[in-house]
Amino acid sequence: RSGEMAKLTQLIDNEVFRAYATYTTIVLLKMMLMSLITAYFRITRKAFVNPEDTASFGKGESAKKYLRTDPDVERVRRGHLNDLENIVPFLGIGLLYALSGPELSTALLHFRIFAGARIVHTFAYLIPLPQPGRGLSWAVGYAVTISMAYKVLKTALYL
Amino acid sequence: RSGEMAKLTQLIDNEVFRAYATYTTIVLLKMMLMSLITAYFRITRKAFVNPEDTASFGKGESAKKYLRTDPDVERVRRGHLNDLENIVPFLGIGLLYALSGPELSTALLHFRIFAGARIVHTFAYLIPLPQPGRGLSWAVGYAVTISMAYKVLKTALYL
Amino acid sequence: RSGEMAKLTQLIDNEVFRAYATYTTIVLLKMMLMSLITAYFRITRKAFVNPEDTASFGKGESAKKYLRTDPDVERVRRGHLNDLENIVPFLGIGLLYALSGPELSTALLHFRIFAGARIVHTFAYLIPLPQPGRGLSWAVGYAVTISMAYKVLKTALYL
Repeated sequence: RSGEMAKLTQLIDNEVFRAYATYTTIVLLKMMLMSLITAYFRITRKAFVNPEDTASFGKGESAKKYLRTDPDVERVRRGHLNDLENIVPFLGIGLLYALSGPELSTALLHFRIFAGARIVHTFAYLIPLPQPGRGLSWAVGYAVTISMAYKVLKTALYL
Repeated sequence: RSGEMAKLTQLIDNEVFRAYATYTTIVLLKMMLMSLITAYFRITRKAFVNPEDTASFGKGESAKKYLRTDPDVERVRRGHLNDLENIVPFLGIGLLYALSGPELSTALLHFRIFAGARIVHTFAYLIPLPQPGRGLSWAVGYAVTISMAYKVLKTALYL
Repeated sequence: RSGEMAKLTQLIDNEVFRAYATYTTIVLLKMMLMSLITAYFRITRKAFVNPEDTASFGKGESAKKYLRTDPDVERVRRGHLNDLENIVPFLGIGLLYALSGPELSTALLHFRIFAGARIVHTFAYLIPLPQPGRGLSWAVGYAVTISMAYKVLKTALYL
């Protein structure tokens, strides 16, 4: 058993893999933060979607008026969905990239730029910053993922 | 080739990794079930979104009336999206956590509580249960993921 | 350090794992393409959702009219969400399946059919093809994922 464990921890002891673990955890935690921000805006704007969520505001019509959409809530939800659309590819392609034997410095460059771009994207979406702020931050994260995908296919291609 | 295979299967022979594989597969299958429930409600409520999906109901206006939203369909879709938002972080952070060398009993506790919380969340959303049922089940899964993220960053942090 | 690297690259040298890496990267890139197609339709149809995205069309009412939904944009977005709902389970279950020691030919069959089904699904959604074209392509990808999940649970089950 401890022999197996030793082999497993070799993976987590590898510096490229540790960097992947660190930045993946950071961007996933950032994505999870969107749930809390959505909840915050739903409560402060009193804008809910499920009838059972407005029960504490009373019954009937007095509660029903809080079943509505709010621009701030919808904005956070769009940011959350954009995270899913971009962080899921990073999760998968980044893992394969980390296992494809990149140089540590190159890998760190990819992971840091991706994480930075997604954090900037969130601020650009929520403040919001004028375009092309949000567009550029999205494109940078996208390009990093494409670059990692290229390395994975170059190293591992088996059709 | 068989030497490589032996090394690969060492990963799947590790008990913590097997537990991760089991519970991840369970929650992903549970998430996939949401597609079937959505399809079931779309068909029984006759509520579709794509014109080509209503072609079997005839042409023109007679089919067009089934291009509508239905509260039950929308409820399942919200549950499905909530699964994506919460199970994707579990997928990534849970994998890194399983590789970070946790105690088997601690890992099992995390995986079991997360899977249980997400199953309760689905029932709470679909029945629906009065709040804070759904909110609490969501928070429990969220907290488990944060706890695993903490262990990953403590073990692997490499910025 | 180079000893660790050697061990890591053993994973990527395994043929089943290389096949997983290849097909996962392909379906994730295909999913990422949906972002570009959405942007293309938003720009050509002039249908935006964020006020800051319409600033280049002028100020006030002249720009506000481009804050609207467009059927083609919404169709691509539904295809993108369907990808997320189906490719996330493939990402997780496929990885565990690749580590569960399947025959190379069986694994290739699973990965190829899944990737093919998702590509057909995208064309079926965007053209659109008459049903049951889209429904069948969705079901094929779904069935492949269930088949891999069965193998994972049979090999690794640890509750």
